Amino acid sequence: MRLLVVNPNTTASMTRKIGEAARSAANARTEIVAVNPESGPSSIEGYYDEAFAIPGVIAEMRKAGEIDATIIACFDDTGLDAARSLSPAPVIGIGEAAFHIASLVAGKFSVVTTLSRSVPVIEQNLVRYGLTNRCARVRAANVPVLDLEIPNSPARGRISTEIDQAIREDRAEAIVLGCAGMADLAAELSREHGLPVVDGVVAAVKLAESLIALGLKTSKHGGYATPRPKSFSGAFATFSPTD
Amino acid sequence: MRLLVVNPNTTASMTRKIGEAARSAANARTEIVAVNPESGPSSIEGYYDEAFAIPGVIAEMRKAGEIDATIIACFDDTGLDAARSLSPAPVIGIGEAAFHIASLVAGKFSVVTTLSRSVPVIEQNLVRYGLTNRCARVRAANVPVLDLEIPNSPARGRISTEIDQAIREDRAEAIVLGCAGMADLAAELSREHGLPVVDGVVAAVKLAESLIALGLKTSKHGGYATPRPKSFSGAFATFSPTD
Amino acid sequence: MRLLVVNPNTTASMTRKIGEAARSAANARTEIVAVNPESGPSSIEGYYDEAFAIPGVIAEMRKAGEIDATIIACFDDTGLDAARSLSPAPVIGIGEAAFHIASLVAGKFSVVTTLSRSVPVIEQNLVRYGLTNRCARVRAANVPVLDLEIPNSPARGRISTEIDQAIREDRAEAIVLGCAGMADLAAELSREHGLPVVDGVVAAVKLAESLIALGLKTSKHGGYATPRPKSFSGAFATFSPTD
Amino acid sequence: MRLLVVNPNTTASMTRKIGEAARSAANARTEIVAVNPESGPSSIEGYYDEAFAIPGVIAEMRKAGEIDATIIACFDDTGLDAARSLSPAPVIGIGEAAFHIASLVAGKFSVVTTLSRSVPVIEQNLVRYGLTNRCARVRAANVPVLDLEIPNSPARGRISTEIDQAIREDRAEAIVLGCAGMADLAAELSREHGLPVVDGVVAAVKLAESLIALGLKTSKHGGYATPRPKSFSGAFATFSPTD
Amino acid sequence: MRLLVVNPNTTASMTRKIGEAARSAANARTEIVAVNPESGPSSIEGYYDEAFAIPGVIAEMRKAGEIDATIIACFDDTGLDAARSLSPAPVIGIGEAAFHIASLVAGKFSVVTTLSRSVPVIEQNLVRYGLTNRCARVRAANVPVLDLEIPNSPARGRISTEIDQAIREDRAEAIVLGCAGMADLAAELSREHGLPVVDGVVAAVKLAESLIALGLKTSKHGGYATPRPKSFSGAFATFSPTD
Amino acid sequence: MRLLVVNPNTTASMTRKIGEAARSAANARTEIVAVNPESGPSSIEGYYDEAFAIPGVIAEMRKAGEIDATIIACFDDTGLDAARSLSPAPVIGIGEAAFHIASLVAGKFSVVTTLSRSVPVIEQNLVRYGLTNRCARVRAANVPVLDLEIPNSPARGRISTEIDQAIREDRAEAIVLGCAGMADLAAELSREHGLPVVDGVVAAVKLAESLIALGLKTSKHGGYATPRPKSFSGAFATFSPTD
Repeated sequence: MRLLVVNPNTTASMTRKIGEAARSAANARTEIVAVNPESGPSSIEGYYDEAFAIPGVIAEMRKAGEIDATIIACFDDTGLDAARSLSPAPVIGIGEAAFHIASLVAGKFSVVTTLSRSVPVIEQNLVRYGLTNRCARVRAANVPVLDLEIPNSPARGRISTEIDQAIREDRAEAIVLGCAGMADLAAELSREHGLPVVDGVVAAVKLAESLIALGLKTSKHGGYATPRPKSFSGAFATFSPTD
Repeated sequence: MRLLVVNPNTTASMTRKIGEAARSAANARTEIVAVNPESGPSSIEGYYDEAFAIPGVIAEMRKAGEIDATIIACFDDTGLDAARSLSPAPVIGIGEAAFHIASLVAGKFSVVTTLSRSVPVIEQNLVRYGLTNRCARVRAANVPVLDLEIPNSPARGRISTEIDQAIREDRAEAIVLGCAGMADLAAELSREHGLPVVDGVVAAVKLAESLIALGLKTSKHGGYATPRPKSFSGAFATFSPTD
Repeated sequence: MRLLVVNPNTTASMTRKIGEAARSAANARTEIVAVNPESGPSSIEGYYDEAFAIPGVIAEMRKAGEIDATIIACFDDTGLDAARSLSPAPVIGIGEAAFHIASLVAGKFSVVTTLSRSVPVIEQNLVRYGLTNRCARVRAANVPVLDLEIPNSPARGRISTEIDQAIREDRAEAIVLGCAGMADLAAELSREHGLPVVDGVVAAVKLAESLIALGLKTSKHGGYATPRPKSFSGAFATFSPTD
Repeated sequence: MRLLVVNPNTTASMTRKIGEAARSAANARTEIVAVNPESGPSSIEGYYDEAFAIPGVIAEMRKAGEIDATIIACFDDTGLDAARSLSPAPVIGIGEAAFHIASLVAGKFSVVTTLSRSVPVIEQNLVRYGLTNRCARVRAANVPVLDLEIPNSPARGRISTEIDQAIREDRAEAIVLGCAGMADLAAELSREHGLPVVDGVVAAVKLAESLIALGLKTSKHGGYATPRPKSFSGAFATFSPTD
Repeated sequence: MRLLVVNPNTTASMTRKIGEAARSAANARTEIVAVNPESGPSSIEGYYDEAFAIPGVIAEMRKAGEIDATIIACFDDTGLDAARSLSPAPVIGIGEAAFHIASLVAGKFSVVTTLSRSVPVIEQNLVRYGLTNRCARVRAANVPVLDLEIPNSPARGRISTEIDQAIREDRAEAIVLGCAGMADLAAELSREHGLPVVDGVVAAVKLAESLIALGLKTSKHGGYATPRPKSFSGAFATFSPTD
Repeated sequence: MRLLVVNPNTTASMTRKIGEAARSAANARTEIVAVNPESGPSSIEGYYDEAFAIPGVIAEMRKAGEIDATIIACFDDTGLDAARSLSPAPVIGIGEAAFHIASLVAGKFSVVTTLSRSVPVIEQNLVRYGLTNRCARVRAANVPVLDLEIPNSPARGRISTEIDQAIREDRAEAIVLGCAGMADLAAELSREHGLPVVDGVVAAVKLAESLIALGLKTSKHGGYATPRPKSFSGAFATFSPTD
C-alpha cells in the first residue's frame, strides 16, 4: 500500500524527518511518499500560516497519483476537511491521530505544543473532534517550530519541563506531542517520564494502514461530499472541481 | 469610516448585491468598499471551495489599504481566523455576526442555509463560537448558492418552507439566513413568518461600525497574534509576514 | 432614536455616570434617557438585591413611553427576561452585550467583577447565553459596587491587579469589566494592559442602535411571548398584563 | 419540624391544593404552613409574571417566623436564589426537587408543563442545575395553569397524551409534572402509563425533611452569602438587609 | 420500612460503622439491615476491585428477601446499574446521593476522596449523572480506605487540609466526602470549616426513605428493564435471570 | 504478536464467529486467541448481564499468559476499565474502537445496536469517551443478541431498515454496528447503503496492532494504576492483587 505523507510546510529537512518517522512505524509493505508543497510557509505557526499551506497540500495530493491514504503531517491538521472532500481514499491528520490513540491508553492526556499562538488552534480542533474532555490541558513550550531542527537547542529541555508540569498540575496520564517536528523525541520522553508519550506522525501511519486494511473510506454523505463542479478562476483555475 | 466587505467568491454579481445590502444598513458616514478575489471559486459550497477562497480574501485585505474594519461576506466565515491574525483592525464574519445578533432577540434560532454539505461547516462554527445551545437546528433548503442569483427561481419558496418547519419542529424563535446571497430576502420573510429573520451581511455591518465606534480591535494575545516573520515560497511568496 | 437606559439600582450618581458613558458612545441622533427606579436597593450585589430591583426596572420601562430600545445597566442583566417579555422593542443587558462584543475581538475573555458573591450569578448567565466556553474565568476584585463611586479609592488598583492575573493565569485575550460602575475605566485599562477591555454600557448602546437600525425586535415566539392577561393583586396590581 | 410552603402566586385555591399535597407526603411530626403572597400575579406563566411574584415570596418568608425549611411551590423555582440568600434554613424549589428525585429512579425523564412559554424557563433551570442531560425533552400540554383548578377540564387528557408521546418519541423512562397544580394527578398517571411520574411538591417535602434531618443548611460561601447591609428605598424599604 | 445497606467490600468493621451511620440518620420506623458480601475485595480502590465487588452486592440483594430499598454504600456506586435492573424497589448509591443532596445546599461542591486512582471513577460518575458542572473539583487526600478504620491515623488531618484547599482554590461552597468510611467525620468537619460537609451514607438513607414514602420505584423502561431470561453458566449459574 | 480476543459471554458459536472476523482483519504475523469465560451469561443484554461477565473476562486474561494486547469483544466494552488496570499490555473495547475509527471517516455516525435496553449503556460510554457529539443517535433494531446466530432470521433486515432511517433522519454519515455478533454484516451493509459501516471487532484488531507497533501501553498514572495489593475473599480469593 502507498501512503502519501504531506508536510504542509516547505521545509525539506522537516519533510525528511517526518518521512523517516513515518517509515519507522510503517508495515513492511507500506510505501511512504513524503512530500511538501512548493509554495507556502516554511513553518506553520498559527492561523495565518495555515491558510497559505492548504492549497499546497491539495496540490501535492493531486500530483501524487494513485495512493491508498493521505496523512497531513502538521499538528493543526492543516486542510484536513478540504483534503477529505477531495479524496476518495482516507485522509488523517496527525493531530486527530494522536488524540484518538492517546484516548486508548489513558483517561486524560495533556498536549505539549510549540508556541502559545497554536494553543487555541489545537483547543478548537479538540472541540470539533469531540475529545475536549479527554484533554486535561494544551500547553506551549515556547519553542518555535524550526528550533526543533537545530541540534542541541534548548527545545527538548523545555518540552520535558512542560511534561513534568502536566503530570503534576493537570493529572495527565499521557502526553501528546503537539508538533510534527517532535516525532523523534517521543520514545525517549516516554522512558524519561514513565508514561505514554504519543507522536502524531507514527500514530497517523498506523491508523491509515488500519483504515486501508478495513476497506474504510471517507463518507461522501454530508460535509465531505465530493466538491460540486464549478469554475475556479485566476491562480486557482487548475483546482476547479469537475464532474 | 471605511469598511472593507470581502465576498470570498469570485462572482461579481453577488459582490454587487452584498455591497448594496451593506450600504443599505450602513451609517451615512460609513464608506462600503465591496470586493471579491481575482482568484478562487465562483461560489463556496463546502470545505474544498473554502480552502481556495482564503488566499484571495487575504489578498484583497492587503490591497485595500487603510480600512477601519473588514467583513467577510460568506456565511462560513471563510478565513476569519487568518484575517484576524493579519489585521490590526476588527474583522467580522457574517455567520458569527448573525448568530450574535439573533441571540439578542430570541432564545433559540434555526439557521436555513443552501446545501446540506454546508450544514457541518456551520455546526462546527457554532461549536467554536460557543453558541451551539442557542441554535435549535441548522437546516438546508437544497438551493445551490448561485441559484439565489437567478430571478424567479424556486429558491425563495424552498427557504420559506424550511422556515415554516423550523418554527413548527425546532421551536425556533428567530431565523438566521445561512448565505450571503439571501441578504435581500430577510425583511420580506420576517413579515411573512412573523418572527425575526436575521441576515448576516447587515448584521456584520452594524457590528463592525459598533466595534469601530468603541475603539475595539482584535486582541493580539493568543491565537490572533501577528504572524511571525518567516519566508513564504513560490506562489505565496508575497504573503510572507515580515517584522 | 430614543434609548432608555435603566440603572436597576437607586443610586442617582451611578445613573448619571452610566448616562454619560452611554451618551459618549451613542450616535449623534440617539437620545439617551438614563433613569433609575424609585424603589429598590442602592446597589445590586447578589441574588437578593436583584429580586427587589426588577419591579422597579419594569416600572421605569412602563413610565418611559415610546422608546426604540431598552438597556438594562447592571452587569447581572437584572430582569432581562421579564423586560423582553414586556416590550415590543429590543431589550439588551450590559452583561450579555459585553460578552457578545468581546467574542468578536478575542478567542477567550476573562470577566473582572466586584464581589465574589456575584461570580455565580455571572457564571450562570454565561451558561444560559451559551458563551461559557468563550469565558476563561470570572474573577472578583473584592470591591463593593459603591466604592467605585468614591474618588481615589483603591478599587481601580485592585481591578488592574486582577487583569494582570487574568492575562497570566487564564490566558485571557480580552477583559470584560463586570459592573456598570466601571464604565469610565475601560479605555485607560485597555491602554495599560495592551488588550481589549470591554465595558458593557457602551457595548449595549452600540448593539441597541444596531438592532434598531436593522429593524429587529424581540421574538414573541417562545419564552418572550407577551404576558397573558391576568390579575395582579396588591402592591403590583398596576402591573397586570392586559389584552 | 415546621415547613413553610410558599405558593408564589396569589390563587388561594391552588395554595390549599398544594398544602394538602404537601401534608399527604409529610412525616407525622412535620407541620406544613402553606401560604401565598398578598401581592402579585394570580398564576405564573413566564418571565414577566415571575418577576412580580418574587418580592411576595420573600415577604412570606420574612413573616413566617422560625421555620426549619422553605419550599417554593412553583415549578419555575420562582425566586429560589434570592430566598436561599435570605434564609439560614434550607430552601428547595419544587422544580429542582422533581429533577433530582426523577434522576434517582430513571436514566432520562421528560417534563410535561403547562404552556410553551414556560418551556425555555424550565430548560434554563435544567442547564443551571446541571441536569440537562438527564432530561430527554421539556413538553408543553397547552393547558393554562388555572385550568388545572377547573373540574372536568380537558387538561388531564392533554397531559396524558403528552406522556404517551414522551414515552414513544423521547424514550423517557420517567415523567416529571411541570406545574405545582398537577400535584394530584401523579399517582394516577403513573398507574396509567406504567412508569414513575414525579410531582415536585411532594418531592420537595421529602427533600426538605431530609436536609433538616441531616442538619444541612444552605452554604453561605459564594452566591448564597447573606445579603450585604444596605438601604432599600421606596416600596421595598422594609426589605433592606441589615447587619 | 426495611432498608438494605450493602457495603460492597468485605471488611466487617466498616460495615458496622456504615450501619451505625445509617441508623443514626434513619427514621424511627426504618429498619437498617447492613451487610457485606462474603466474596470479594476487602476495600474498593479503583476499577479492578470494583469489578469483583459487584457479584457480591447482587448476591446480598438476592439473599435479603423483601426490602423496601437498597443502598450501595461505596462512594463509587459499585454495581448501581446492575442492582437497579434487578430490583423492583429503589436502589441508591451513596455517591449519587451525596451529589444530589449537596446540589440543594450549594452552587458548587468539591469532593474529597481517598486515593488519586479513584478520582477518574468519581469524575466519570459525575459525567454520567449529569452533575459535572456542580462539582468544582474531585480531590484525593492520599489516604487508603482502610486507614480510615485506624484510630488516630493522620487520615483525618489530610482530609481537613484538602477541604481548606477546596475552599480557597476551587471556590467550593460545600464539601462531599468521597468514601463510605468517612461517614463519622462529616459533622465535625462541617463545624470546623463553616460550610456544609455531606456524607453519602446518611444522604442515601434519607433519599431512600423519601422514594419509599413517595411510592417511587426504578423505571423499567429503558436501561433498567428487568434482565431478560437466559442461562448463566459456571460459578454464576444461580444468578440466571428467569421469567 | 499475540492478541487475546475475549468474548465476554459464554456462547462458543459467537466466540468462533468473532475469532474468524478478528483473523480476517489481522496481519499475517498476528496470532488471534479467541476465548470466552467458563462462567457467566450466554449473552450480554444490559447492565445485569454485564456485571456477571466481568470476572470471567478477567479470569481469561489471567489464564492467557503472555499476550501483546487484549480485545474485549462485546460492544458495551464489558470490564474495560478493570482489564486496563490489570494488564501491562494495551486493552481495547470493540465499542470504543468502532467509535474512534468511525470518527476518522465521517463527521457524524449513528450506532445500530440490538435491544433498546442497551441504548443507555452505549450512550453512557460515548459520554465517558468524550465522543457524544460525533454520534448522531444510538438506535436499537430490536433484535436479541443470539438471534444474530440464527441463519435466515429477520435480524439482518431490521438492521438494514434502521440504517436507512439513520441516513434519512439522523443525517448519519457512517454507521457503527453495535454488537460483536454483527461483525459479518458490515461489508455487505456498506455496499448496500453506500456509506462506511464500521464493525468494532475488526476495528479493535487494527487498533490493537497499531498500539503494539507503536510500543504504547496503558498509562499507570491515574485511574488505570496497578491494583493495590489486598486480600480478596471467598469465590474471588484467587483474584487478589499482590505486590
